[in-house]
Amino acid sequence: MELSPAEQLEFDRLKNTIASEYAKFGFTPIDTPVLERAEVLLAKAGGDTEKQLYRFKKGDTDIAMRFDLTVPLARYVAEHYNDLVFPFRRSHIAKVYRGERPQKGREREFYQCDIDIIGHDSLDINYDAEIVQVIYSVICKLSLGKFKIKLNNRKILTGLISWLGNSNTVDILRVIDKVEKIPTSLFEKELGNFGLDQPQIDTIKQFITVKGDPEEVIAKLRSFGIDNEQFTDGIVELETVVRMTEELGVPKQNLTVDPSIARGLDYYTGTVYETFLVNHPELGSIASGGRYDNLADCYTKQKLPGVGASIGLTRLFSQIKEAGIIKFDKKNVADVVILPLSEKEIGEASKLAQKLRQNNIKTDIFLSDTPIKKKFRYADQIGIPYTVVVGADEVKNQKFTLQNMLTGDKKLITADEIIKILS
Amino acid sequence: MELSPAEQLEFDRLKNTIASEYAKFGFTPIDTPVLERAEVLLAKAGGDTEKQLYRFKKGDTDIAMRFDLTVPLARYVAEHYNDLVFPFRRSHIAKVYRGERPQKGREREFYQCDIDIIGHDSLDINYDAEIVQVIYSVICKLSLGKFKIKLNNRKILTGLISWLGNSNTVDILRVIDKVEKIPTSLFEKELGNFGLDQPQIDTIKQFITVKGDPEEVIAKLRSFGIDNEQFTDGIVELETVVRMTEELGVPKQNLTVDPSIARGLDYYTGTVYETFLVNHPELGSIASGGRYDNLADCYTKQKLPGVGASIGLTRLFSQIKEAGIIKFDKKNVADVVILPLSEKEIGEASKLAQKLRQNNIKTDIFLSDTPIKKKFRYADQIGIPYTVVVGADEVKNQKFTLQNMLTGDKKLITADEIIKILS
Repeated sequence: MELSPAEQLEFDRLKNTIASEYAKFGFTPIDTPVLERAEVLLAKAGGDTEKQLYRFKKGDTDIAMRFDLTVPLARYVAEHYNDLVFPFRRSHIAKVYRGERPQKGREREFYQCDIDIIGHDSLDINYDAEIVQVIYSVICKLSLGKFKIKLNNRKILTGLISWLGNSNTVDILRVIDKVEKIPTSLFEKELGNFGLDQPQIDTIKQFITVKGDPEEVIAKLRSFGIDNEQFTDGIVELETVVRMTEELGVPKQNLTVDPSIARGLDYYTGTVYETFLVNHPELGSIASGGRYDNLADCYTKQKLPGVGASIGLTRLFSQIKEAGIIKFDKKNVADVVILPLSEKEIGEASKLAQKLRQNNIKTDIFLSDTPIKKKFRYADQIGIPYTVVVGADEVKNQKFTLQNMLTGDKKLITADEIIKILS
Repeated sequence: MELSPAEQLEFDRLKNTIASEYAKFGFTPIDTPVLERAEVLLAKAGGDTEKQLYRFKKGDTDIAMRFDLTVPLARYVAEHYNDLVFPFRRSHIAKVYRGERPQKGREREFYQCDIDIIGHDSLDINYDAEIVQVIYSVICKLSLGKFKIKLNNRKILTGLISWLGNSNTVDILRVIDKVEKIPTSLFEKELGNFGLDQPQIDTIKQFITVKGDPEEVIAKLRSFGIDNEQFTDGIVELETVVRMTEELGVPKQNLTVDPSIARGLDYYTGTVYETFLVNHPELGSIASGGRYDNLADCYTKQKLPGVGASIGLTRLFSQIKEAGIIKFDKKNVADVVILPLSEKEIGEASKLAQKLRQNNIKTDIFLSDTPIKKKFRYADQIGIPYTVVVGADEVKNQKFTLQNMLTGDKKLITADEIIKILS
């Protein structure tokens, strides 16, 4: 994905919003190299990810480009263990690389915006709720309309599968993860492939379509009479996360328990969540994550449980662009462009520009010696909302013409008044 | 380079300072893919750059990782020509890749912070001065101590070489570029290799060591009696850039004309500049750039002259770290950590945290159910400057204990008073 300046400004606005929300919650940004030794990435890659790896040799070194930000986090935590204080709250907003066949909305180079909280030996389940709170805050700030965060706990599903007497847990979870994306007949067929008979398939279908308030859903799930420890633990954890999430101020209407949420990735072990726009369910989950028991077992003997979430910003951006949820009305970052009438006024025009910049007003200045008409055309084409003309009279009287380029309104005012209006 | 959280915070502070200064001058950030088709990069790569390229095949595609941000800019401008308004002011802060032998301070993956102003057909020389002004502003904001921007114009040196009757211009410029880095004997020998005799070498040495105020230096250079057009054009351009740079408010003490500045890269055609810290000349140039006649001749028929500058942030960071110019006193981005006394106060503690976050205070909250001592130890280890304890009494009276972790000072105050102190 490569964007025009207008699109890029909007993309950056979203990216900076996410970064600043993450920071407000005390997540420290880290940065790791895009290139890692291939063996480091391969220790955690599997299946498609391995095939999609950009991998090559430079001299004797077998190098690859990272395919997500979680594997580099694991390596980072193992390597910088002595520099870190736990629980370690880190954010990482950066590009990752997957050499998959290009599809609509699936880029091979794309941004992920991750947060994780990593504990040492143990991590309180309250942090699962806090990650949900952060997702809630970030998505609110992105102004994408109504949304719901769907909560579940993997132990509930693994408890169900074990209660059905089946041990193909991982495969069945992957099928459940696809339930919204594939036709019912295919869903049933795939479950059948993993040794489930029709009554068992019906039970699963009934189980994962339970609906209602979080409390209702949990009560209905309990009524299935599943009696193993996994299931019971999962239910208790889910109840805690729901209660704590509400305690942390996430409104009820943004929260739901959905027993069909499984997450395709193997490493989740407890809480899982996905986020959907109410008016654009076709976008799929825009922010997902969950709890894992041990982050870095490939790289260290320390036990490091964690919980995290990820926003796939590149994909989200191309989707909301296509859905018409965002607009691109600015082609340039500047708030105002200063137009010196002639070369003689450049010094004074620059003084004015510096005053505005000191007040955090993004200020462009037009420095070519061309007729004033051409200067205005530049401001107009680039979509800068305001112009200020600086001529000999303006310099003498220290009053400048501020023009609103949308309405055409003009005002002859002082620098301080310009600052007040533009701030 | 991979940084600990404390170092990363400082690195990001510098990076964000640069980005925000660039934006204040109306430079619009763009983002291009790290991966380009190898032929695109090779069209502009040469010599070492080509050898250092990370290049590989994925399927049938011959791919490479960008080695600078200028070649991608050329490709971008050619490709998005119709979306752009000229002069096009763009900034780009991103990683580039060079597979060179690892050396101290030379990473193979590193950040460049570039700005360029691209004209269509022509670009007023005043913009050369504006780039100098931006460099001045940025380096001031980075608080690295006293510094000088050294100006020159390549035409002056090419005029000199041509006046000496030598046509190995590019080679001789490359030798002149190294004058500060190699011993005099080697410098003379290398010049000799390109057909210059001792009197000519002496003239060059005399020429490039002319010192003084910008006006003095220019007068002395004129006194060499060089009479070709290139030299005369170069002098006139240099005078204009010096005058305009001062007009734009860059103080005289930060500006010098240095006829030895040549820049190693072939594509500069006029103004060139480098920036040095007065107390740390051993760091070399920390911000460099110049004017080029035609940016994108490999990719488009449009004539696109431009002027730009680049800060090699990764290298700068490791150098100023080693020189002790920066300090790392924070391990976490947060300004304050909220410590609920027990699980019961988490809801109220979270409400307080949200109030602080709404006021742009970066707020961590400790959610594990552990003794208060352990909670304080977390705050202490991580270097967060303030803690707020929230217990039953605090909730009842809506007054909370704000503690300065450095001085130990405690105050029992309201949320609004906490916000006032932390803002």
